Amino acid sequence: MKNKLYFHTTLNQKTTEAYASIQKERETVGYYDLPEQDINPILEYCKQIPAQIESIAVIGIGGSSLGAKAVYEFLKPVKNLQRKLYFFESTDPINIQNLLSKIDVTKTHFLVISKSGTTVETFAIYKYILSKQSDYSYYTFITDPNSALEKYAKELKANVLHLPQNVGGRFSVLSTVGLVPLALCGIDIKALLLGAHHVKQSFFEQGELQDILLKKALFYSQNHAQYPINCLFAYSESLKYFCEWYVQLWGESLGKKQIHSAFHVGLTPIGLIGPKDQHSFLQLIMEGTRDKSVTFIQIEDFENDVQIPDTSLPHLEALDALNSLPFSRLINMQCNSVIEALRDEEDIPLDSILLPKIDAENIGGLIFYYELLTSLVGELIDVNTYDQPGVEAAKIILKKKLSI
Amino acid sequence: MKNKLYFHTTLNQKTTEAYASIQKERETVGYYDLPEQDINPILEYCKQIPAQIESIAVIGIGGSSLGAKAVYEFLKPVKNLQRKLYFFESTDPINIQNLLSKIDVTKTHFLVISKSGTTVETFAIYKYILSKQSDYSYYTFITDPNSALEKYAKELKANVLHLPQNVGGRFSVLSTVGLVPLALCGIDIKALLLGAHHVKQSFFEQGELQDILLKKALFYSQNHAQYPINCLFAYSESLKYFCEWYVQLWGESLGKKQIHSAFHVGLTPIGLIGPKDQHSFLQLIMEGTRDKSVTFIQIEDFENDVQIPDTSLPHLEALDALNSLPFSRLINMQCNSVIEALRDEEDIPLDSILLPKIDAENIGGLIFYYELLTSLVGELIDVNTYDQPGVEAAKIILKKKLSI
Repeated sequence: MKNKLYFHTTLNQKTTEAYASIQKERETVGYYDLPEQDINPILEYCKQIPAQIESIAVIGIGGSSLGAKAVYEFLKPVKNLQRKLYFFESTDPINIQNLLSKIDVTKTHFLVISKSGTTVETFAIYKYILSKQSDYSYYTFITDPNSALEKYAKELKANVLHLPQNVGGRFSVLSTVGLVPLALCGIDIKALLLGAHHVKQSFFEQGELQDILLKKALFYSQNHAQYPINCLFAYSESLKYFCEWYVQLWGESLGKKQIHSAFHVGLTPIGLIGPKDQHSFLQLIMEGTRDKSVTFIQIEDFENDVQIPDTSLPHLEALDALNSLPFSRLINMQCNSVIEALRDEEDIPLDSILLPKIDAENIGGLIFYYELLTSLVGELIDVNTYDQPGVEAAKIILKKKLSI
Repeated sequence: MKNKLYFHTTLNQKTTEAYASIQKERETVGYYDLPEQDINPILEYCKQIPAQIESIAVIGIGGSSLGAKAVYEFLKPVKNLQRKLYFFESTDPINIQNLLSKIDVTKTHFLVISKSGTTVETFAIYKYILSKQSDYSYYTFITDPNSALEKYAKELKANVLHLPQNVGGRFSVLSTVGLVPLALCGIDIKALLLGAHHVKQSFFEQGELQDILLKKALFYSQNHAQYPINCLFAYSESLKYFCEWYVQLWGESLGKKQIHSAFHVGLTPIGLIGPKDQHSFLQLIMEGTRDKSVTFIQIEDFENDVQIPDTSLPHLEALDALNSLPFSRLINMQCNSVIEALRDEEDIPLDSILLPKIDAENIGGLIFYYELLTSLVGELIDVNTYDQPGVEAAKIILKKKLSI
């Protein structure tokens, strides 16, 4: 992964302190250790799932689904995966029926994922699916130790897997929560973790990413009042769900009251896909209020490339310049053109990330890169990166309505 | 459609003037007339497409694809549509091949849509698809009269349809651009336009929506510095692509330099889907910086509903309260709980839109509602709602790189 910053900032005492805090945090926050975990128990578990199972369905929402979806959707178009992966993550009745019509419940293994073990959406959907497939051997439950869900699963003698300690939902993709569904589809989770490990190493062992991540975090935090919106503009359709994962990670981690004040702070994440969103959101970035930073993501080598044919169309000869160009070159030229145009404006903070190719190692690295960046920015803007007290109020109101 | 505002504002001289400007604009801006257009030519054209054509593929980007996609994806899960609709809207080589693998080019009719007739992405993709299907009878071209694309199509004696005059790309979904692909899939375009017509009538003939749209536009424009971000939070998975259409409409129309100043202004659109994004973005709205307004969209009657079974799970008896509840009630209770929780904060501007059901008439109305709102806000924040000068710079740089 290469990351080039087009803005300037100088590391200072604040970044030194933030780095020290992150170092200290490693003792208590669980996600930092995930890249080096022993994956053998997961691989062993996967062997138990019979070969005739064609699909895996995650019943889970938010942190229980977004990470696996990001990785799966990134790799699916280029890898010959063993099984299909579906996500039941909405209480929309049309959506539930639509998804169910796509799978054969006798050839699907369901992963019921709920950290707390009491997520309303997850259990509403689970109860419905249970009415279609009542054999518990078709289910695995992933939850925190001693949750009500674990007790339930144990009573049924069903499969239960645990989340590691102190890993929050939105930081859990590299734990059982993400690794189990991905491994069951045949995704190389060892490579996924290796990619994360390399990024971690670079950050904690004074590699190139230490300087870059600190500078980026410092810039975002110092300028969060002027540039409160952070766009991720990815030039690959395969990164669409990575953007959704990023939106949760960034928004839910960084939008809250400060620890040492009563101020509401927050950085607003926006996911964009190029070149499509050049025809949508770009105008706003280019000419709208100067409240946005933009990070571009490009794929260096699409591998499975195709070329624009050498065809001349009468009256459209101007477009002959496209002939024989590989699409991968075109899409990257488009991205570079947008970067140049925005740089010319001089007041839009930009950086660009180049992923060598579409594989598990690269997406693992990108995930860890964003987790580290989130932790750093959270530290610098003085919030608790790992809680989400703001979602409780609506849950309490709902439970009251439901008389739970 | 019902729309309830949870914030207060009083109409004033500015709104009277803005309304007068919109009235005047109807003489020159084309989209206002679309609901009452004669659709017989489109229906006649559709009859020419042979019955053995199973799929329709739009080759187009931005305004040429987002509108039809929004309507199609809204209706697809509940209607038994005649044909499938695909969108080639990216130069990502993986995406192009992936889409091509899903269709049979001998049973697909391609709609090449480019208003200007020279969109780089569209022609790159068209050339590639032409190498897979070289029979021009499989193509229809939709473009402005006298564009290079029209000349090309005429030379081939291929089908050409025109965009109506003075209709910009992002306001074109109710013109040939959206109606042709939708009608070819068997979507009731008459009902779609009728829904738009009712909203238009309500706005221009002093119906309920006139007051509401003026108040909403006034509030957004008066407070655009304090609340520069406008979230659309839709409690229906089927509205996912409507949100993408909204993002283009809002962002590209309202993000630009003011007409009577050199200031950059703009309102940033964000599309959210509930309840999923309660587990993602809600924390940021609830506890983050107070820079967002939120509009909720709910479906009153999902029609094709299902019920949570009456099952009690040991250790999870607290969730028995969900039993026998229709999912449609649950999802709407979730939405109402979030609205209540946000109202309790007292400083987040909210409103909610209730769509009676999922059909063409309702989505047509919602589209026109947002088009009118965009025009009003554009007028009030002093921008040219209908141009997009900011996207030109990157295009020029790309053309230079390509030596076009």
